[in-house]
Amino acid sequence: MQINFKEAADFLRENDCYHILTHASPDGDTIGSGFGLCAILRKMGKKANVYCADELPRRYDFIYEGYEPMDFELKTVVAVDVADPKLLGKSFAHYADKVALCIDHHISNTGYAKRTLVEPDAAAACQVIFKLMSSQKLVECDENIAKCLYTGIATDTGCFKFDSCGPETHFAAAELMKFDIGAGKINRRMFDQKSRARIAVEQHVLGSMEYYFDERCSVAAVSLDDMHKTGLPADEFEGIAGLTTVLETVEVGVFIRQKEEHKFKASLRSTGDIDVSAICSKFGGGGHVKAAGCTFETSIEDAKTQIVKAVGEALGEKA
Amino acid sequence: MQINFKEAADFLRENDCYHILTHASPDGDTIGSGFGLCAILRKMGKKANVYCADELPRRYDFIYEGYEPMDFELKTVVAVDVADPKLLGKSFAHYADKVALCIDHHISNTGYAKRTLVEPDAAAACQVIFKLMSSQKLVECDENIAKCLYTGIATDTGCFKFDSCGPETHFAAAELMKFDIGAGKINRRMFDQKSRARIAVEQHVLGSMEYYFDERCSVAAVSLDDMHKTGLPADEFEGIAGLTTVLETVEVGVFIRQKEEHKFKASLRSTGDIDVSAICSKFGGGGHVKAAGCTFETSIEDAKTQIVKAVGEALGEKA
Repeated sequence: MQINFKEAADFLRENDCYHILTHASPDGDTIGSGFGLCAILRKMGKKANVYCADELPRRYDFIYEGYEPMDFELKTVVAVDVADPKLLGKSFAHYADKVALCIDHHISNTGYAKRTLVEPDAAAACQVIFKLMSSQKLVECDENIAKCLYTGIATDTGCFKFDSCGPETHFAAAELMKFDIGAGKINRRMFDQKSRARIAVEQHVLGSMEYYFDERCSVAAVSLDDMHKTGLPADEFEGIAGLTTVLETVEVGVFIRQKEEHKFKASLRSTGDIDVSAICSKFGGGGHVKAAGCTFETSIEDAKTQIVKAVGEALGEKA
Repeated sequence: MQINFKEAADFLRENDCYHILTHASPDGDTIGSGFGLCAILRKMGKKANVYCADELPRRYDFIYEGYEPMDFELKTVVAVDVADPKLLGKSFAHYADKVALCIDHHISNTGYAKRTLVEPDAAAACQVIFKLMSSQKLVECDENIAKCLYTGIATDTGCFKFDSCGPETHFAAAELMKFDIGAGKINRRMFDQKSRARIAVEQHVLGSMEYYFDERCSVAAVSLDDMHKTGLPADEFEGIAGLTTVLETVEVGVFIRQKEEHKFKASLRSTGDIDVSAICSKFGGGGHVKAAGCTFETSIEDAKTQIVKAVGEALGEKA
């Protein structure tokens, strides 16, 4: 059942003993939403804890390091930024049909929860929680809540860079920055600082980029052999497909990564009008207009040839 | 003479026939301020043109491509984002003592203009112009004005990332984004897209980085010989010193670039508490706590040795 802000606020006021669930492979928005909502509920005098199926990345420790779980018996399950119960993670599957309230910003939310508060126009789940807190006067904001919600909004918008960021996003950030949250330091940590392994991965991908069709298409490919030879760690490839569109002329970027002996995953990114989900659907894949993927069971060279040909057709070029 | 927003608004209302001057080596903030203020003045029924001593970079063409200079005799000179008359550029030196109004956000503004409206807490000159326009009701904002002012604010804050960005910065952005300015597209162009030459420069600098003191200090050096061999273009090095602090452990980043046969310029960046202007002052240089520079007339190896030793002392390490 879709509910509105008032109904969500009434629900939170009437219930107690919350387990707040983030999605697995947690990012800044789900972590900020989880600990932000937890701080709000505790300030309301409720008992609340945050749970995630996966370990929380160390880079978000400034959000969770002051947190201590409370001792109580679960009565109410709330999920934040979780569009589909599958995203809770395998070890949290038992929660799937017990979610009493889901707060989210994904238009793709499956409606699995008993109550869903979803704002598809919001740039982040943290923006929805900010609106819930302030419009319904749940509590007065404070430094800790502001730090959590700001981090989620900043990380889910690429620091206010993406199309998803709108006037309401900036209004929320303005209100949250009135507290002493050290936003500049948070942003430096979220966006500018990298591990040595990540720098090496980016160097490798940028260095091996090939360009086609007057540099309108770029292709980077990383094989298992490359990873073995260079020692590039598999867990440092998150979001790396975005690097394929750094060159200013590129309209379609392709990142191919070998998963198994004859299995390759291609991730496509579009910077303009080309619908990459249409390209990927030719190979049994799919996704969004600007970001999509597909899988090839062949050689890396053949995968590259096939995908470049399809991109060329989309660009109106002869491959 | 320092003036306030009301006095600046009165001045703009009472005068006409404006030359608006940006600083030389123009950036997004001075260009956005120049064309934004020009659009405001024209909307007020005034005659106004924008001038810059240097050619405007093509990456800002979405700001100035619809602009046509008007034909009129100069009566009033206004400078925007110009903290010191030297920054007008050599060919504009004749304007230096004729600036009737300067609108700026640099605390270091020399007060060279007859009237100065400076807000040192503002993240960008465009933020000051936004406040002037809206608080003094000079004109109703529109898409063109919003596009100019948003671009200046976004570029001068690293897309709302830096410490300089505060609640007022986000409030301004929120108001400006109510117009159909395509902020996501602007940001992609300003922050994500790079030329092939720039990518090559970044690859070279990251690839040649050396680390000292448990990776608390990084040093990258580019000689004239490197530039000659690799074909790296000199005009793609703007802001490259920022790359020296990408590794998460680095507290002081050093970028050394050869300028002439025995002349090297070192640019230092600090990510924490170390005052790099104090380090640079040992070598006759200076700057700010977090960004400073100095010059060496020696060999590149000796320059590196001297600066690493000084950084080591600042870090409390033995070089």
